[in-house]
Amino acid sequence: MKEIIECVPNFSTSDPKVVEQILNQLKSTPDAFLLDYTFDSYYNRLVVTFVGDKQSVLEAMLKMASKALELIDMQSHKGQHPRIGAVDIVPFIPIKNATMEDCIQLARRFGETLANKHNVPVYLYAEAATKPERKDLDWIREGEYERLAEMIVKPERKPDFGPAKMHPTAGAVITGARKVMVGFNVNLGTADLKIAKKIAKALHSKKGGLSNVKAMAAYIPERNITQIGMSVTDFEATPLHRVFELIKVEASRYNVPIIGSEFCGMAPLKAIIDVAAHYLKIDNLTFDRVLEIAVQNAIEQRESFA
Amino acid sequence: MKEIIECVPNFSTSDPKVVEQILNQLKSTPDAFLLDYTFDSYYNRLVVTFVGDKQSVLEAMLKMASKALELIDMQSHKGQHPRIGAVDIVPFIPIKNATMEDCIQLARRFGETLANKHNVPVYLYAEAATKPERKDLDWIREGEYERLAEMIVKPERKPDFGPAKMHPTAGAVITGARKVMVGFNVNLGTADLKIAKKIAKALHSKKGGLSNVKAMAAYIPERNITQIGMSVTDFEATPLHRVFELIKVEASRYNVPIIGSEFCGMAPLKAIIDVAAHYLKIDNLTFDRVLEIAVQNAIEQRESFA
Repeated sequence: MKEIIECVPNFSTSDPKVVEQILNQLKSTPDAFLLDYTFDSYYNRLVVTFVGDKQSVLEAMLKMASKALELIDMQSHKGQHPRIGAVDIVPFIPIKNATMEDCIQLARRFGETLANKHNVPVYLYAEAATKPERKDLDWIREGEYERLAEMIVKPERKPDFGPAKMHPTAGAVITGARKVMVGFNVNLGTADLKIAKKIAKALHSKKGGLSNVKAMAAYIPERNITQIGMSVTDFEATPLHRVFELIKVEASRYNVPIIGSEFCGMAPLKAIIDVAAHYLKIDNLTFDRVLEIAVQNAIEQRESFA
Repeated sequence: MKEIIECVPNFSTSDPKVVEQILNQLKSTPDAFLLDYTFDSYYNRLVVTFVGDKQSVLEAMLKMASKALELIDMQSHKGQHPRIGAVDIVPFIPIKNATMEDCIQLARRFGETLANKHNVPVYLYAEAATKPERKDLDWIREGEYERLAEMIVKPERKPDFGPAKMHPTAGAVITGARKVMVGFNVNLGTADLKIAKKIAKALHSKKGGLSNVKAMAAYIPERNITQIGMSVTDFEATPLHRVFELIKVEASRYNVPIIGSEFCGMAPLKAIIDVAAHYLKIDNLTFDRVLEIAVQNAIEQRESFA
């Protein structure tokens, strides 16, 4: 079976017409498959999840990024999520019959091709980073789009590809390779962003919270509530029930209830299994125990015999 | 793609040598795949889970049942789980590209062939039942092996296949077709079987408990604890978190803690998803949201294009 690579690009837009045109680039690429996309005005951000083999993922990603660079103007962009550019971040993730090294190579090819084609600065991050500090998205994104012009000229911030000069409408692009992670948002029964920010801070790994958790607070105007938006980079080491229960504890300090939660992007099976196993105290809940996975493995075994 | 049928036969043995010989019959059948098996001395029962297409499932099941009828002698059998025979119960379950009607036909062919070959009485149950009361396993199994001789001669209890006379060493066989269900066991921090029985009763649908739940209590000598053993026949209508939380409530009356739980056989993904969604208050957790399932669907889509 061919390799499967996942790609989860984040674009700085929530304009439905722009979203549609970006997605059309993906849909017109053979062997690339859209799994999910989500966008909203409060983050003002589009997150797309798709899979394919190396060639189709690279092809689709270059087409989508080119379209986004054409249509998105960062000069008028506002949003609650930190961002440095129109094609803010493009991670490649090995899923099946693929290695992290494959994804690092993909990120390099994507970054170099895009930089040459559009004269846009590109940074490599996470597993593809060329220096230790560049592994950290927050370090690269420091000052965001608004301060990029002054940051990018510093010698230690020279882009990995393209000019050491911000692109006027697109800012800079970050790409790289990483393991599967979880995007998990928890909605709070309060409109008070100050409280939400305190809770987000209590969760964030760098601010005394949980390892492997990045947390930010946002206000959701349609519902007049706030949300803790999180990335859990290692959900096996820091399972979601621990994240959820800690938010519950911190929120109870302010008498704020948790009113719901959601995955942003895809939910890895292991993350779901670990939650169920925790709350039901299940001792034997492995991947192979899940009926659909076991049946799938049996089919693959049969096909490899045939 | 070919159809996938699941079969979950229950045999009245926990003798490792007998278990091995029964499993060997399955392993020697092409295109039939063992997913799981479990046996223990307190239930004195072997539960096997396997999948295959119609032909291979029928072939494997006939070979396993013949071997079990040859090796198991019910005259010396003791166990905490209700049972009527050596090949106690054989359900066929549609998983993919198969209907309930396919599984009813499989059960009929299995039952008729086995009855003719071994002169053993066979009852059809669940979706394959020939009369409404026979849908109910408990009704068929009333009196168990020990009273089978007197029960089987009653006109309303005439077997669907084979003689209206119990097989001396094998008792009777029950086969049928049903939807996927969940076997779920919860371990209690008490050795007092009287308490465990009260809790099991509180859960059991027919005794005032939860719809779709059959519950029994058993003592587990190796660990000096008790267990609530359950079948949840419709785990979408009656999700596992409700079962678990109700046990917790009933057990707390006796200051008994839940010390663990386990799936008996396979765990359907929907059952796991529902638990995670409940405890984390997740609003958007569908099948398609699970990364591994979405990737699998994308691969199948690709293969159907190729």
